Amino acid sequence: MPEPGPREVLVEVTSVGVCGSDVHYYEHGRIGSHVVRAPLVLGHESAGRVVALGEGASKHAEGDRVTLEPGVPCGRCRECRAGRYNLCPDVVFFGTPPVDGAFARYVTIHEDFAFALPDSLSDDVGALMEPLSVGIWACRKAGVSAGDRVLVTGAGPIGLLAMQVALAFGATQVEISDVNERRLELARQTGATRALRAGEDEPAEADALIECSGHPGALQAGIAALRPAGTAVLVGMGPGESGEVPLALIQGREIWVTGTFRYANTYPTAIALAATGRVDLDSIITGHFGLEDTETALRAGRDDPGSVKPVVHP
Amino acid sequence: MPEPGPREVLVEVTSVGVCGSDVHYYEHGRIGSHVVRAPLVLGHESAGRVVALGEGASKHAEGDRVTLEPGVPCGRCRECRAGRYNLCPDVVFFGTPPVDGAFARYVTIHEDFAFALPDSLSDDVGALMEPLSVGIWACRKAGVSAGDRVLVTGAGPIGLLAMQVALAFGATQVEISDVNERRLELARQTGATRALRAGEDEPAEADALIECSGHPGALQAGIAALRPAGTAVLVGMGPGESGEVPLALIQGREIWVTGTFRYANTYPTAIALAATGRVDLDSIITGHFGLEDTETALRAGRDDPGSVKPVVHP
Amino acid sequence: MPEPGPREVLVEVTSVGVCGSDVHYYEHGRIGSHVVRAPLVLGHESAGRVVALGEGASKHAEGDRVTLEPGVPCGRCRECRAGRYNLCPDVVFFGTPPVDGAFARYVTIHEDFAFALPDSLSDDVGALMEPLSVGIWACRKAGVSAGDRVLVTGAGPIGLLAMQVALAFGATQVEISDVNERRLELARQTGATRALRAGEDEPAEADALIECSGHPGALQAGIAALRPAGTAVLVGMGPGESGEVPLALIQGREIWVTGTFRYANTYPTAIALAATGRVDLDSIITGHFGLEDTETALRAGRDDPGSVKPVVHP
Amino acid sequence: MPEPGPREVLVEVTSVGVCGSDVHYYEHGRIGSHVVRAPLVLGHESAGRVVALGEGASKHAEGDRVTLEPGVPCGRCRECRAGRYNLCPDVVFFGTPPVDGAFARYVTIHEDFAFALPDSLSDDVGALMEPLSVGIWACRKAGVSAGDRVLVTGAGPIGLLAMQVALAFGATQVEISDVNERRLELARQTGATRALRAGEDEPAEADALIECSGHPGALQAGIAALRPAGTAVLVGMGPGESGEVPLALIQGREIWVTGTFRYANTYPTAIALAATGRVDLDSIITGHFGLEDTETALRAGRDDPGSVKPVVHP
Repeated sequence: MPEPGPREVLVEVTSVGVCGSDVHYYEHGRIGSHVVRAPLVLGHESAGRVVALGEGASKHAEGDRVTLEPGVPCGRCRECRAGRYNLCPDVVFFGTPPVDGAFARYVTIHEDFAFALPDSLSDDVGALMEPLSVGIWACRKAGVSAGDRVLVTGAGPIGLLAMQVALAFGATQVEISDVNERRLELARQTGATRALRAGEDEPAEADALIECSGHPGALQAGIAALRPAGTAVLVGMGPGESGEVPLALIQGREIWVTGTFRYANTYPTAIALAATGRVDLDSIITGHFGLEDTETALRAGRDDPGSVKPVVHP
Repeated sequence: MPEPGPREVLVEVTSVGVCGSDVHYYEHGRIGSHVVRAPLVLGHESAGRVVALGEGASKHAEGDRVTLEPGVPCGRCRECRAGRYNLCPDVVFFGTPPVDGAFARYVTIHEDFAFALPDSLSDDVGALMEPLSVGIWACRKAGVSAGDRVLVTGAGPIGLLAMQVALAFGATQVEISDVNERRLELARQTGATRALRAGEDEPAEADALIECSGHPGALQAGIAALRPAGTAVLVGMGPGESGEVPLALIQGREIWVTGTFRYANTYPTAIALAATGRVDLDSIITGHFGLEDTETALRAGRDDPGSVKPVVHP
Repeated sequence: MPEPGPREVLVEVTSVGVCGSDVHYYEHGRIGSHVVRAPLVLGHESAGRVVALGEGASKHAEGDRVTLEPGVPCGRCRECRAGRYNLCPDVVFFGTPPVDGAFARYVTIHEDFAFALPDSLSDDVGALMEPLSVGIWACRKAGVSAGDRVLVTGAGPIGLLAMQVALAFGATQVEISDVNERRLELARQTGATRALRAGEDEPAEADALIECSGHPGALQAGIAALRPAGTAVLVGMGPGESGEVPLALIQGREIWVTGTFRYANTYPTAIALAATGRVDLDSIITGHFGLEDTETALRAGRDDPGSVKPVVHP
Repeated sequence: MPEPGPREVLVEVTSVGVCGSDVHYYEHGRIGSHVVRAPLVLGHESAGRVVALGEGASKHAEGDRVTLEPGVPCGRCRECRAGRYNLCPDVVFFGTPPVDGAFARYVTIHEDFAFALPDSLSDDVGALMEPLSVGIWACRKAGVSAGDRVLVTGAGPIGLLAMQVALAFGATQVEISDVNERRLELARQTGATRALRAGEDEPAEADALIECSGHPGALQAGIAALRPAGTAVLVGMGPGESGEVPLALIQGREIWVTGTFRYANTYPTAIALAATGRVDLDSIITGHFGLEDTETALRAGRDDPGSVKPVVHP
């Protein structure tokens, strides 16, 4: 059992979501320049209960239920000072080499990165504040606001959550595309105004594109659907370091293109949206596993086309 | 019956909301520097049916149901070019001296300022796209986004709509204050997370204040409730040209204060929010009057404390 | 001699700059989807003297010296209303098929798109308010502010002006790259903090990239030089409809990429910068031609590697 | 001599500017809710030389010349995470009770809040990076950009620097007002496009107001000079907790009003502007004092109407 340092809390983990990046590390041993060189505990979507307080920690009490923002930045560098702490080069992030993650019975974290979980939210939902944050960050980057028309490409867990978040931001037309009909059906059930078969159905004009598939064709077609001065946000990681984009359209329509890396300042928003019922996170949870079955959970996405978000309970 | 000019449409008016500014002109003959010097038709919250097209008009067909954005700007000046067309010094605005308004059987307007009304929306709701626009504009100025905490002071028609719009923008804490218990009850029924008796109940910390009462005390107390770097938007007009604000708080917390004058680029959003059920406009309609009873409608607010929004049907 | 319409002015043209797009139309008969199908007068960088007023025109007097913003938008559509009038689909733009341009003795234009030229500015400088606007628009899109570090790739007329504008916006590190040593020398003389041989010298870290070369490699290398959350603005048009960009960098560093199409709301700024000596436009003028020598002027860039900006005097 | 803690540097102070707030503490023993209850060393505008490194400090070497950002925030709270670290409630700020300041021979500070001073900048100029930061922050809040028209009210040290900074941001019309003719003369010498006798001369229309006098009348008149949608930034502190503002103008013209509290992310910009000669800081230094004459320096502003910025050399 780890010892909480100054201003840290010791958390007994009760629920951990399985993320595609966990699966990628498990299968490939690396993501880009992040290489697993020593045994590593994965897992960064977690909730649990505070069981001990480090020196000077005062924000939580023992027994409090909390969700954990898994990356603790330095708080001092140029990026941190500018409020872009997700881009801090010295961030310590759960389950990213060489930092151990949350597929564990206990973890420690700075108290300011543990957030109180309202009674109305389950531990599983608490764990999903992390992927929900990815969706929130994408919608913020896209500038989604009330009455907007949003196209989400890719209906995996992130795409499905980004879609729900877009609706929670007030978007009134939210289309989502995928090749997996079961995921499209889930999208329809959770609020998509239209579910598109990728590569077949034509999207309507959109104010914002949230690309969650990592598929080069989705990016190109998605940008083509944007209105002048619209915004494309890349969330899904594609196959290579670089890719083709329609530069003439980007210029002629003055389209904005950006990408997201994790998120910043999203946890209070995530908790508020979940607690007020603006998003339905239970709908994407498709499996529950014990800590000893974590490997099965990591394989669930590959073994079961209906799997969206497996959750592990240490 | 007026003749539609080039690119104008002739609209048979079917529904016109009564606004506090109509009442003010009716009772006082002026609003600030706008003075009624000749007989004037009031009314600027209107919907109807296109009955004739001027030369070159092609956006609508005869018979189309439309809601009318009542101010047509010049489209050329510095403000128009910058997208701030609500501040165009040469705007022609319904029911503002010397321009006649919509308490009439027929009006003409440039086709680009008539917006198609979906079948699902009634004419009355169509008329209320105008005050809904005021609420949308206030929320945009306030930068309301998902998970935000908003304080609305004043639960008249504009305050009640601003409150609903804040919810539609994703705000998860929306408090509203008034002295009129009937209006507070209506606020509770239409989504307020808390209804406050003005001057008695303490508001919670808020990210944004939308001041709709025109009451100096509401402004001061509302600003005091804002978090650091929060925003206060003045919508309600107060009694004088100037007023007291807590300058030391504005400086020490770097609060932003601004005001709204009408709105710009809101009609498509208003229609989308209404058509998708994000706002409930029927809830604030409290009376229906024939054109011949327009004066009664103008007096309804004074005669009946339960009156919120009377609608006139020419 | 054309007749000025309502609110138009008739302008006797005295100076017209030659733009790369004029040359492209001249040589290829088209730019993308804009195809020259009938005899067309080119030229859109112009200044002159008001010689007659159309009905209702009151902004200028006969004899006034003016510079002309060459694109007159509709003022009514979604883009115009939002202040993005450069993206108006119905814009009427000098020298773009089928609209005749300014290589002519007289042109007419809406009075609001003619801007008074201070006595201190020559007609030639007046004509160059147009390419200067391109540089201003690029710097605005890039969010250039005081103390910023800007990389400009391509030292043609637009790159050289964008560089000067970046300095005028307060940028304190402005590097510019090209393969043409004469242009690099001109860049050094007009304020570049460093002139780079494209493909050889390594740029320093930058807050913003302004890509003016249209060269795919410049775009890729330029984006790689950006700090996290930096912005890349594409001004130069590349060889194809689409091109490669470093998507993994855009995501991992949350870089913003956009392009520019003409400009909006730049003329007052352009005139103010020139009138206060913040930019030196004479430095880029490399040739003077009579109207009858317009073809020679159009060929100057090809015939003379030292040519930057030829100017025609009708 | 203090001992540098982990990641701190020990700095031998060589130059410290006297700020109006130092004088206010000296004369009144408090500023608002900040009350001096025990002997306190004042001074927060400082530069010096690193003479020792705390454990883990690696950013500077012994002997390095540095300027010190005097407020070290917590780096973890909501304000810090959002990039608004100047509003951190737990900031530790030099010379603000109960934290000792820089009118001392040695101070310690976290290494990330010491910034390397280029050889071209003197220690005195290094100390003035602090008030220069106030001017930069004001111009950022005001959104000053190239070609803008700025009105600065109050030509004390902060007003004079804000004026210079506005010019460095590219403003082309910068008017400044005061009642002190010597300060107006200094303003003219350092770039003001017009110096106004407060209460007598009428300012021209401006895009932004930077209020540095704390005088209620200056605020009111300054706001009246703003164009529609202009911005007023309150830097100078007025006599009371609250004050009158022209609310009808703020509403009718949709003006933005805000205030500044210290600054954030300004030091790199300040150093870059000074090092490239965009601002002239020596022009405002009006006296040099030894550490033993600090009281004389604190009284200089009262005793000598020509005093602008006295500097103390420990």
